Amino acid sequence: MAGSTFGKNFTITTWGESHGKALGVVVDGCPAGLSLCEEDIQTYLNRRKPGATRYSTPRREADEVQILSGVFEGKTTGTPISLLVPNTSQRSADYSEIASYYRPGHADYTFDEKYGFRDYRGGGRSSGRETIGRVAGGAIAAKILKELGIEVCAYTKAIGPVSIDMARFEKEAITQTATAMPDRIASAEAENYLSACMAKQDSAGGIIECTITGMPAGIGETVFDKLDARLAGAVMSIGAVKAFEIGDGVAAAKAKGSQNNDAFYADESGVHKKTNHAGGILGGISDGDTVILRAHIKPTPSIFQEQETVGRDHENRTVQIKGRHDPVIVPRAVVVVECMAALTVLDLLMSNMTARMDGITAFYQK
Amino acid sequence: MAGSTFGKNFTITTWGESHGKALGVVVDGCPAGLSLCEEDIQTYLNRRKPGATRYSTPRREADEVQILSGVFEGKTTGTPISLLVPNTSQRSADYSEIASYYRPGHADYTFDEKYGFRDYRGGGRSSGRETIGRVAGGAIAAKILKELGIEVCAYTKAIGPVSIDMARFEKEAITQTATAMPDRIASAEAENYLSACMAKQDSAGGIIECTITGMPAGIGETVFDKLDARLAGAVMSIGAVKAFEIGDGVAAAKAKGSQNNDAFYADESGVHKKTNHAGGILGGISDGDTVILRAHIKPTPSIFQEQETVGRDHENRTVQIKGRHDPVIVPRAVVVVECMAALTVLDLLMSNMTARMDGITAFYQK
Amino acid sequence: MAGSTFGKNFTITTWGESHGKALGVVVDGCPAGLSLCEEDIQTYLNRRKPGATRYSTPRREADEVQILSGVFEGKTTGTPISLLVPNTSQRSADYSEIASYYRPGHADYTFDEKYGFRDYRGGGRSSGRETIGRVAGGAIAAKILKELGIEVCAYTKAIGPVSIDMARFEKEAITQTATAMPDRIASAEAENYLSACMAKQDSAGGIIECTITGMPAGIGETVFDKLDARLAGAVMSIGAVKAFEIGDGVAAAKAKGSQNNDAFYADESGVHKKTNHAGGILGGISDGDTVILRAHIKPTPSIFQEQETVGRDHENRTVQIKGRHDPVIVPRAVVVVECMAALTVLDLLMSNMTARMDGITAFYQK
Amino acid sequence: MAGSTFGKNFTITTWGESHGKALGVVVDGCPAGLSLCEEDIQTYLNRRKPGATRYSTPRREADEVQILSGVFEGKTTGTPISLLVPNTSQRSADYSEIASYYRPGHADYTFDEKYGFRDYRGGGRSSGRETIGRVAGGAIAAKILKELGIEVCAYTKAIGPVSIDMARFEKEAITQTATAMPDRIASAEAENYLSACMAKQDSAGGIIECTITGMPAGIGETVFDKLDARLAGAVMSIGAVKAFEIGDGVAAAKAKGSQNNDAFYADESGVHKKTNHAGGILGGISDGDTVILRAHIKPTPSIFQEQETVGRDHENRTVQIKGRHDPVIVPRAVVVVECMAALTVLDLLMSNMTARMDGITAFYQK
Repeated sequence: MAGSTFGKNFTITTWGESHGKALGVVVDGCPAGLSLCEEDIQTYLNRRKPGATRYSTPRREADEVQILSGVFEGKTTGTPISLLVPNTSQRSADYSEIASYYRPGHADYTFDEKYGFRDYRGGGRSSGRETIGRVAGGAIAAKILKELGIEVCAYTKAIGPVSIDMARFEKEAITQTATAMPDRIASAEAENYLSACMAKQDSAGGIIECTITGMPAGIGETVFDKLDARLAGAVMSIGAVKAFEIGDGVAAAKAKGSQNNDAFYADESGVHKKTNHAGGILGGISDGDTVILRAHIKPTPSIFQEQETVGRDHENRTVQIKGRHDPVIVPRAVVVVECMAALTVLDLLMSNMTARMDGITAFYQK
Repeated sequence: MAGSTFGKNFTITTWGESHGKALGVVVDGCPAGLSLCEEDIQTYLNRRKPGATRYSTPRREADEVQILSGVFEGKTTGTPISLLVPNTSQRSADYSEIASYYRPGHADYTFDEKYGFRDYRGGGRSSGRETIGRVAGGAIAAKILKELGIEVCAYTKAIGPVSIDMARFEKEAITQTATAMPDRIASAEAENYLSACMAKQDSAGGIIECTITGMPAGIGETVFDKLDARLAGAVMSIGAVKAFEIGDGVAAAKAKGSQNNDAFYADESGVHKKTNHAGGILGGISDGDTVILRAHIKPTPSIFQEQETVGRDHENRTVQIKGRHDPVIVPRAVVVVECMAALTVLDLLMSNMTARMDGITAFYQK
Repeated sequence: MAGSTFGKNFTITTWGESHGKALGVVVDGCPAGLSLCEEDIQTYLNRRKPGATRYSTPRREADEVQILSGVFEGKTTGTPISLLVPNTSQRSADYSEIASYYRPGHADYTFDEKYGFRDYRGGGRSSGRETIGRVAGGAIAAKILKELGIEVCAYTKAIGPVSIDMARFEKEAITQTATAMPDRIASAEAENYLSACMAKQDSAGGIIECTITGMPAGIGETVFDKLDARLAGAVMSIGAVKAFEIGDGVAAAKAKGSQNNDAFYADESGVHKKTNHAGGILGGISDGDTVILRAHIKPTPSIFQEQETVGRDHENRTVQIKGRHDPVIVPRAVVVVECMAALTVLDLLMSNMTARMDGITAFYQK
Repeated sequence: MAGSTFGKNFTITTWGESHGKALGVVVDGCPAGLSLCEEDIQTYLNRRKPGATRYSTPRREADEVQILSGVFEGKTTGTPISLLVPNTSQRSADYSEIASYYRPGHADYTFDEKYGFRDYRGGGRSSGRETIGRVAGGAIAAKILKELGIEVCAYTKAIGPVSIDMARFEKEAITQTATAMPDRIASAEAENYLSACMAKQDSAGGIIECTITGMPAGIGETVFDKLDARLAGAVMSIGAVKAFEIGDGVAAAKAKGSQNNDAFYADESGVHKKTNHAGGILGGISDGDTVILRAHIKPTPSIFQEQETVGRDHENRTVQIKGRHDPVIVPRAVVVVECMAALTVLDLLMSNMTARMDGITAFYQK
């Protein structure tokens, strides 16, 4: 019950530490007959790879994925897909000092309390490198969703005080800007803000937004496995996420019913909503509209300023963190949010296939 | 995989519709030897009972709980506890019209799309009455937590634009004010706001805050079952919740690392944090500080104004909703948030008992 | 994790004790649109009802089922179905003595060791009445399977030394003989054997066989959720079952490969096997042939002879059990085996719907 | 829901095919602080390694395990342990012919029916090499059990008609005889029998017995997660197992209650049973006595005689299987049974830690 498995139908079980031999994931429940090669996964991993810009850790990792099982002659076989990414640039010496104290904003103290000790090299399992398994697994989920006409797209919405202007939304910019913002002008501003933070040995947080388009209506279960509940659990399980919103989110709590309700209308193509305050989900079930969610991410806790803390010996002391750290986590976390959303949606799409007697009957009569 | 079971160690399986014969819950995994009687549970159910104030539906329900199994001579036996609450005040005639159209902001359309039809009486399973099972089960979880020195306390933080002032926090007020606010002055203001909404046939939303005190450090798992992730999934599974925050939440995304990091310090009683921006959770694991979360709740979708929508026949039309509806969901949802938090924390407390070899050895050597 | 829920897609959560107010089950994951009424379930419950013959306990229970949720206008809605059966004939006084000692062959001692105490009235949760929830839930599973052309049929194969002769197999006899044997001649012999046992204050065991016909090929997962593994776990979870066989079972271990292998052949209707030593399962996956399993059931542990045992005070003593007890469990357990098999097969049929990419694509393109 | 994960608290997720790059397992829920090195696991893997005797496939595999995560400075960290065993001796050419037809007694046909195609190299995921992950994970479970004083010991009880004599039981012989029999005389007889089978291009089955000593009373849950039910599901999930027994097993069904009941008695060391027909389990819960189970294993389906079967083209044909195959699976499956039993027992030991309120209170008061 240590919770390293995500999902019920399409599951990922992730493993690996920042400075171990490798990290990886076992994907179970992937349907047979999907074309799959390393490149499908590598594309996603490259989006979270360190060292790409001056706002990410200078640690250089190839992060090259290997498919070890579950694929035969270019097709998934229906059996577990084991994906492995070797660690190649561990410099454990950088971290040896961390062994002796608790970094503020990190999991050093809580791991020690829970387990009695910890793998202090680069945060061990609490490192952002843990997300490699999520992204590798999520890449497969996203590929399946694309075959079903569903697209998941995440991007940076804000860094510190700098927000994008949706009127300037340019999808290609997401993978071209250093900030993963789809607005090149806001991105340049955000870069200035980050430079100022770095100059003061400080760090920044921000907001990631994610849209899911092409969703069929009916996805999500009625009570505990609501689509929004499962998305919330998935996205909040990413380290550093401190808040989660669906649709209008926090703004909805301030609105009146007459403002927040989305009127339905019908045309020849079916039933639609005039607005989308709901973020594509009603009663926990997709309504066919675009699903919109946001993750609020705290500033990188590793800052180079001197900080007050406590040693493992429980003596008060000050520390100055060294090593390689991103001044902002947001741009590299964009693909992680996208992948967790894809995994969640696919898992619930699979659940939904048994929701109706006529669907089951049709399946077994084929 | 229809998702009516919550939890992994201490589980609840809820059932029942707004206008069926009864609603209930099966609690599995409750440890043996806990003193338990109906009154323990009724106290919690009374906090969500309709008809208590002018801001809740005039539907009158006794909502009296019966314990059908799992308790012998006043103690839990370790076997499943079945709790049942009969429905006594169904007036299905009120709802028959709903059968023919989709109420904006409700799950009518999505249920029809998912299941092919729906129990249209009072929203069926998508009704707020679904939460009876959560509260009945959560009351038991909360009782166990109290025996371990852990207290979960939720209250209304805001209704529409009216927020409480923490300087006026008075715990007793939570169950005494019509708004479940712990600040009587803010509560009076909120009542004025609600009266104004009702006069305009409109509704309001708001914010529920929940604190968990007495938490041991070490609760929560490292990746997908992080304490904050599980709390997010639990709270977002409550109908009408549109956003979830831990600690500083959305504000953390705007802060700098030097502001958001909580410095550690030690004194004779152990290790503490000087501030609690983190909301009591670091790396997904409790740090021993108070856990703080917030749920943002949309305004009641049932408003009496005329609204545009679509019929089951997919014809555009207008509707005017009748029946018995709360102008604000927030006050009655307070105990639901509290119960979902209690269930989550207890479930992870149980998981944590197997985290260390020395803990297991000690248990079996007793 | 107390294990009162069975299944992953179509789940049952059972509750209730021998002498509590009621017993019941929550069925979650039942597809919407199935016609369902109390009678569908009652028919199955009547097959396990006590008091029907001289070989079952004289306790008289109506065992009348109530559907409390999940059905609207005669159809399942896709939401949880709560089924309740009141206990009406508890005579707890009969059992008060049991509180003070451990009955041989029963769970009195192990419950005390596990939970610290026990509900001693009629065995509490360890009573055979626990199976009411299994049968009520299994009746729904069996109904769905029938709509898919799959029939599960269990019967008594042997009681003590008396076995049926398959040449005399008569399906109607299963529900007409007191032994649930499909062979009236063997049934008469078995009745003589049971009378002899009863005369000596002794009890008998026996074998239940179950066939599943109309199975599509492809059901079952490749490793831990093999069809035979899941059937074994399901059937062995019924109290008093001490062994489980698939196909030739124990005889297979003595055979040679050339004898045990089933040759394939093809005709215009598809691929078949010339023999069925395998019992319809190859590599854990159904092969389209009849699935055959057997459950070996121990003799009723409640016998009226004087027995040596230990008191709760850990003093050695003798006991003479009173109360109402079946001299053989087998006939009433037949429907329980049938129901557990139906639940297992339906659960894996649902899992199998996501096994192939083309199946998923076809489902969402409809 | 593809079922490659076993367990609820201590879980293993296995992956890999006979002729893929590697096989492995992710162990999640292993408590922190256990000493662990490759050697602990290698010892178990060596017991199932091919090529050790003339009765196992001549395929030579080093089967050397690598620990990729979850261990730091020789201790488990509480995070997932990833274990990998490279495949080094794949000779896929041997198997290319299998692509075109269905081997009798194998999963070729059922995989094709389920997934639409299959990895035909050496059976792919249905190969006995799949058990590498089980054994690697089970070795860790067994190590933990040993620290708690619980020992799991499996051995060959019979091969074809040759059974061991318990009076000649010699534990060391299990790992020294080619048959894994603890009786050297029976082992020699069994070798003669196997030689005769091989001479006739035939194969043999047999029986594996497994004992679990040092079990505390109270392990196992009351209904679906009974210790015997979980052991049955675990052991029957091993390929080629066709029957499962606990205690007297099939013999219990023929006994009378007065014979099958085990009388309790008490002495200064506690409560015991005079006999152990029950196999150490009453009501699904361990009674403190030795747990005894048996697995009945079919003869190797790969025999070199000509056999009738069907091609993928659904044409009737005969085949003569080539390649490298064991004439009997039993000796190499002994350690697999032992490991599945260890995994099951440990998983339920962990569940049991939350069975009582006093246990939970004591844990959190420490």
